[in-house]
Amino acid sequence: MKTRSAEILCIGTELLMGDIVNTNAAYIARRLAELGINLYHQSVVGDNPQRLRDSLAIAFSRADTVITTGGLGPTYDDLTKETIAACFGRKLTMHQPSLEALESRFAKSGRPMTENNRKQAMMPEGCTVLKNPNGTAPGCAIEQDGRIAIMLPGPPREMEPMMDHEVMPFLQKFQEYRLVSRNLHFFGIGESALEEKLHALMVSSVNPTVAPYAKTGEVMLRVTARVKELSEADALIAPALEKIKEAAGEFLYGIDVGDLQTALVRALSERGLQVALAESCTGGMTAERLTGVPGASKVFSCGLCCYSNEMKEQLAGVQQDTLLRHGAISEQTAKELAAGVRRISGADIGIGITGNAGPEPSEGKEVGLVYIAADSPWYQQTFTLHAARRDDDARNYIRTVASSHALNLALRACRAYPGKEA
Amino acid sequence: MKTRSAEILCIGTELLMGDIVNTNAAYIARRLAELGINLYHQSVVGDNPQRLRDSLAIAFSRADTVITTGGLGPTYDDLTKETIAACFGRKLTMHQPSLEALESRFAKSGRPMTENNRKQAMMPEGCTVLKNPNGTAPGCAIEQDGRIAIMLPGPPREMEPMMDHEVMPFLQKFQEYRLVSRNLHFFGIGESALEEKLHALMVSSVNPTVAPYAKTGEVMLRVTARVKELSEADALIAPALEKIKEAAGEFLYGIDVGDLQTALVRALSERGLQVALAESCTGGMTAERLTGVPGASKVFSCGLCCYSNEMKEQLAGVQQDTLLRHGAISEQTAKELAAGVRRISGADIGIGITGNAGPEPSEGKEVGLVYIAADSPWYQQTFTLHAARRDDDARNYIRTVASSHALNLALRACRAYPGKEA
Repeated sequence: MKTRSAEILCIGTELLMGDIVNTNAAYIARRLAELGINLYHQSVVGDNPQRLRDSLAIAFSRADTVITTGGLGPTYDDLTKETIAACFGRKLTMHQPSLEALESRFAKSGRPMTENNRKQAMMPEGCTVLKNPNGTAPGCAIEQDGRIAIMLPGPPREMEPMMDHEVMPFLQKFQEYRLVSRNLHFFGIGESALEEKLHALMVSSVNPTVAPYAKTGEVMLRVTARVKELSEADALIAPALEKIKEAAGEFLYGIDVGDLQTALVRALSERGLQVALAESCTGGMTAERLTGVPGASKVFSCGLCCYSNEMKEQLAGVQQDTLLRHGAISEQTAKELAAGVRRISGADIGIGITGNAGPEPSEGKEVGLVYIAADSPWYQQTFTLHAARRDDDARNYIRTVASSHALNLALRACRAYPGKEA
Repeated sequence: MKTRSAEILCIGTELLMGDIVNTNAAYIARRLAELGINLYHQSVVGDNPQRLRDSLAIAFSRADTVITTGGLGPTYDDLTKETIAACFGRKLTMHQPSLEALESRFAKSGRPMTENNRKQAMMPEGCTVLKNPNGTAPGCAIEQDGRIAIMLPGPPREMEPMMDHEVMPFLQKFQEYRLVSRNLHFFGIGESALEEKLHALMVSSVNPTVAPYAKTGEVMLRVTARVKELSEADALIAPALEKIKEAAGEFLYGIDVGDLQTALVRALSERGLQVALAESCTGGMTAERLTGVPGASKVFSCGLCCYSNEMKEQLAGVQQDTLLRHGAISEQTAKELAAGVRRISGADIGIGITGNAGPEPSEGKEVGLVYIAADSPWYQQTFTLHAARRDDDARNYIRTVASSHALNLALRACRAYPGKEA
């Protein structure tokens, strides 16, 4: 089999005009890379049949696989299926299972089904229908003369699961190899420092490959093996994981765990522990991230957002003397916030955060200075953050990185609990 | 003058591979729409000179103006200027003012300037140089035979101010008309209900035009006038604003205000009032949104995130009897959370939120049921939210909409304060 090359064509006037940001192209691109399919172009075009036809012709002149998003809706300007089917010389016919799924969906919701909606069950003759459990528009794939056209709906919450569960297995059939990845999540070390520690491994790695991805304040390493059978993957990946753990294991907070808040909720759940938060400058961001994880209610005791000195004293029990002598932005205040919220709530772990997220200096303390403290009977630690960023997005950046440090300290405190090994 | 047509061409392997989401295309598209420049295509291509040349040829076959982002860096694979200058038959020459700006930038930062960095001051002969105050790569514009090529750097925090302050005035010179917009922000009414109220105005509007944009849980109407002189805009826009206010003014929470949290911080600041929050199911999201606005520290008294019944009693003073008789997810609990956090903090307005964000039913109450209460001496109101969404993103959606309702009730409570008119 030859390596396939693909092109992404996103259809929709709201994308073209910039009313929404195109997250679909990035999502599809990442998944294609996992399959080892080459991608050289992405395009966006409005809801216009002639321009769609022209763009499709250009795409197929450069690639053998074209994936479209958008234009599968019920209204008159949703013309993706009609236009692409015509390019392949195919007609649209009613796809009975899709029509039934649509009818049952409308019956459940109690909304009336219009004639327009029936159009969403019309499919190109001989196509593979791609199910959409989260919306009314199924997708489809046409394979003809070595070319593949895949049509997906525009809303990311519909498109992403379809890409994962329908398109990936469909495209996999055309690939000789499969790619298997493990994602290693690091916190507390920068991308270049991590690369330095792992330079030899990264440049010499062929199968598996080792590639870094930077996120705000953290780094992910993706270890990817190319295999013919899934069962071969572990043996290829394990030695690389060992080397990475040897070199930088102290900064590794989880494997395939997604993010810090999910890692924390899992670790607390496994050990039957609870955390409580007292946030000043992060203003609820740490609580918000933590409670965004389903199941957080069992491990999150309470959160206090105390901006003013009065509230720090009254709610979290910070000593007036501490605030007077050290200031609200101080290591001592962070410690008392952590200990105070733990005492008040009865949680196993308390976290305190205080600092200056900007835009102006406060108490004579510079923008970007944040103290984060963890308190438990088995773990007391304070981290001092000096975030240097000063642009328009600095406030959000400082708060995000500070709340990440808070989640990381809570995770370490959780893992330090004795007798509660997961 | 004829109406220009443009195409956006974003260059960068990290965009193509989906490692970063392309926010630049959306940003540039919105600004071009404000100028009334037609945009029919956006494309993304990797750092590859041949594919860049081919993409550029396709773009100029469809449009007279091409705006690129990316590929202006100091490394060997940054080839945008070289490639595009060659397409216009121009050489690169050293641009002395850019070189001096670069040298002074490096001198200030204390970092050594390499030979590679000098390359960033090389510019196509006869171009217009576009200053970049936030980075090392200036941009440039070439105008030749009716065609315009504009090259901008890739990082959004460098590109966006350059688009605003350099590209907009440059392109304005080629436009006969200017577009002036007002953004009207609505909450508590859906897009289709708003369209129904304003149907006649929206379909008949030519100058200004009136167009709706849906965001999560809210709607924005953009009223756009096409004028030769900026001073003509107000007279055109005012009558449309009046009609919109007549039809749907009760749902209008602000004009050109950005979002609910910014509207609330402004309204509280203007009146010298403070708000306090007691959140259960939104888990700090309302506090996080509020404190994301610079200046929030002056108007935000405190926030409590009390998930458990014990914390609702202990922190916010909800009666045990209320929790037993009505449950934690009840109108009465929301009211007591709002009144309790106001009493404890001494704030002018208290907000309470309690509900079920999913994924499982709780206390026998369905997912998506949320009670939001506002309490002040002048305003007591409770809103019951029934959010019907049940997909993977439902938890985030329910929390977002619930916290928007909380911000909206706080805004109404703020505006209900007597003798504190802004």
